[in-house]
Amino acid sequence: MVNTIEWTDDGVVMIDQRKLPSEEILLTCRDYHDVADAIRTMVIRGAPAIGCAAAMGVAIGVLKADDENLDGQFDEICDYLAATRPTAVNLFWAIDRMRALYRSQREQGADPDAIRQCLVDEARRVLREDIAINRELGGHGAALLPHGGTVMTHCNAGALATGGYGTALGVIRAAVEHGNPLAVLANETRPFMQGSRLTVWELQQDDIPVRLLTDSMAGHMMQRGQVQAVVVGADRIAANGDVANKIGTYSVAVLAKENGIPFYVAAPTSTVDLNLASGKEIPIEERSPDEVTQVRGHQIAPQETEVCNPAFDVTPSRYVGAIITENGVARAPYVPSLKALCLG
Amino acid sequence: MVNTIEWTDDGVVMIDQRKLPSEEILLTCRDYHDVADAIRTMVIRGAPAIGCAAAMGVAIGVLKADDENLDGQFDEICDYLAATRPTAVNLFWAIDRMRALYRSQREQGADPDAIRQCLVDEARRVLREDIAINRELGGHGAALLPHGGTVMTHCNAGALATGGYGTALGVIRAAVEHGNPLAVLANETRPFMQGSRLTVWELQQDDIPVRLLTDSMAGHMMQRGQVQAVVVGADRIAANGDVANKIGTYSVAVLAKENGIPFYVAAPTSTVDLNLASGKEIPIEERSPDEVTQVRGHQIAPQETEVCNPAFDVTPSRYVGAIITENGVARAPYVPSLKALCLG
Repeated sequence: MVNTIEWTDDGVVMIDQRKLPSEEILLTCRDYHDVADAIRTMVIRGAPAIGCAAAMGVAIGVLKADDENLDGQFDEICDYLAATRPTAVNLFWAIDRMRALYRSQREQGADPDAIRQCLVDEARRVLREDIAINRELGGHGAALLPHGGTVMTHCNAGALATGGYGTALGVIRAAVEHGNPLAVLANETRPFMQGSRLTVWELQQDDIPVRLLTDSMAGHMMQRGQVQAVVVGADRIAANGDVANKIGTYSVAVLAKENGIPFYVAAPTSTVDLNLASGKEIPIEERSPDEVTQVRGHQIAPQETEVCNPAFDVTPSRYVGAIITENGVARAPYVPSLKALCLG
Repeated sequence: MVNTIEWTDDGVVMIDQRKLPSEEILLTCRDYHDVADAIRTMVIRGAPAIGCAAAMGVAIGVLKADDENLDGQFDEICDYLAATRPTAVNLFWAIDRMRALYRSQREQGADPDAIRQCLVDEARRVLREDIAINRELGGHGAALLPHGGTVMTHCNAGALATGGYGTALGVIRAAVEHGNPLAVLANETRPFMQGSRLTVWELQQDDIPVRLLTDSMAGHMMQRGQVQAVVVGADRIAANGDVANKIGTYSVAVLAKENGIPFYVAAPTSTVDLNLASGKEIPIEERSPDEVTQVRGHQIAPQETEVCNPAFDVTPSRYVGAIITENGVARAPYVPSLKALCLG
């Protein structure tokens, strides 16, 4: 398995997820503009991976900044990275973490080079911690999955969406490592095809049995008794347990409820936004029409077609059976359970 | 608007729906094998259009058959055409209609050339009637649609899925003709993309406002109050009102119910199969894995990917607000209401 993102002497190296699975191309971001572009254009995607990328973007920005007016440049770097994508809260969480560290270093009177080294170390720590968090989270979630059943997942909440190991796929990986012979149904996840391109590819590399289906088939497979559980990742979770995740997640959750199938969300506590009372307040990114009228550059609809392209939707917490974090599993009522896991 | 299918002196002419909207290519079927291939490979698709094609396939088969052993050849033609696709009942309905006519002609002692002419006339009548039926059906359904609302549709149940005018899109067309300023949301309908390729194209030609979305966005749009009604076609309707239609229809129906949005099915009575007590008995076609791993010939998943590719699903009648036919609108309980419309 290739690394999703890595800090190297040359810059921040990412596998270009737009090209997978047909090409495995490593892309090197040499300054913070490159990192921001990579986030915006979905070279790297998935809330925890975006968090890692943002931390490294701040670090490389400061590394390349002049000593003069470092504070002003630091703010510019953070603001620029924060403007890339609006929904995944891990982006803002990572930038805030870097900001807090910068300020404390400034207050302690550290010199610019010491600050640079400290931020680089912190960005690398964000990545290492993310992988460790996913392993913890996987362990907590594994027990929820039925023995030998088929688990549906939507989008890619795997190693590629995180520093490594994955959130939803981390739960599946942990279950398999514990001897549970699971099979996976991967929804292709239009428009960006993270399911067919990334989830199938990842699971094949780990020899976890996986079958691909279009998003339109999810309900039918549930109705036919082919799905025993659903597990997905998240881009932002409100204090009440409402979950913003890749577009189509809400539909899967409704279909799971209608068919009596448990629906689980796996995410680190950095994805929980306790400042938001409910999912209604989560901003939903609208992306380019081309993603809908084309598939990988090939036009499928008439040229002048008007489209909708919300990149995320919000699943109300009443559809969510459990939220699996590195600190344990939250169940309804989510206001106290999430607060306890995040602050406790 | 081009014709979906036409009887000409050269043969049965169809627009190749696999190439739309990028190319408008007319394909001439010169014998019944060509017609069967066209149905199997989805040059022509949509239950009523398949019915028209099957009737013309029988007619062209008999037209080209020798006088000797005409009965044996006739059975071979019918059996060959019947083996093309399993789910849409209009295929079998049309073949049965041609069979009944053939037998009655035989019993009346008609000579082979008279039979040939009679079958050609009948096939052309099936097409003419289908268009007239859709206009009737559209008139009955138009009143159900909210004034000035947005109507979601799945797949293509338009002129291209029928002899002309359409079933679900016929209802929308009739409403617009009656002065209702509707807008349409078209689900792209993976894997075959009938929504993006055919429905958008058709509605644009009629200047009916249409926006395209991926199947994964349907639930989100409903949840956000962007959909006031759903209307779809059908491939087979059981006596109890269970509806087999393009894969993804069941999901849309469940999401509509969850969001309090009326869900309507528009189909001619030839789509109702009173011989089947429920939708559980409807055979569901499984199509080639390539349709899922590729989009229009472009690979999107790893080469060795296992897939599911059911072409249809079954929506239980409890999700169906009304079934709109040329003979009127059926409501639950469907066993008596459908029977009355079909036999009555």
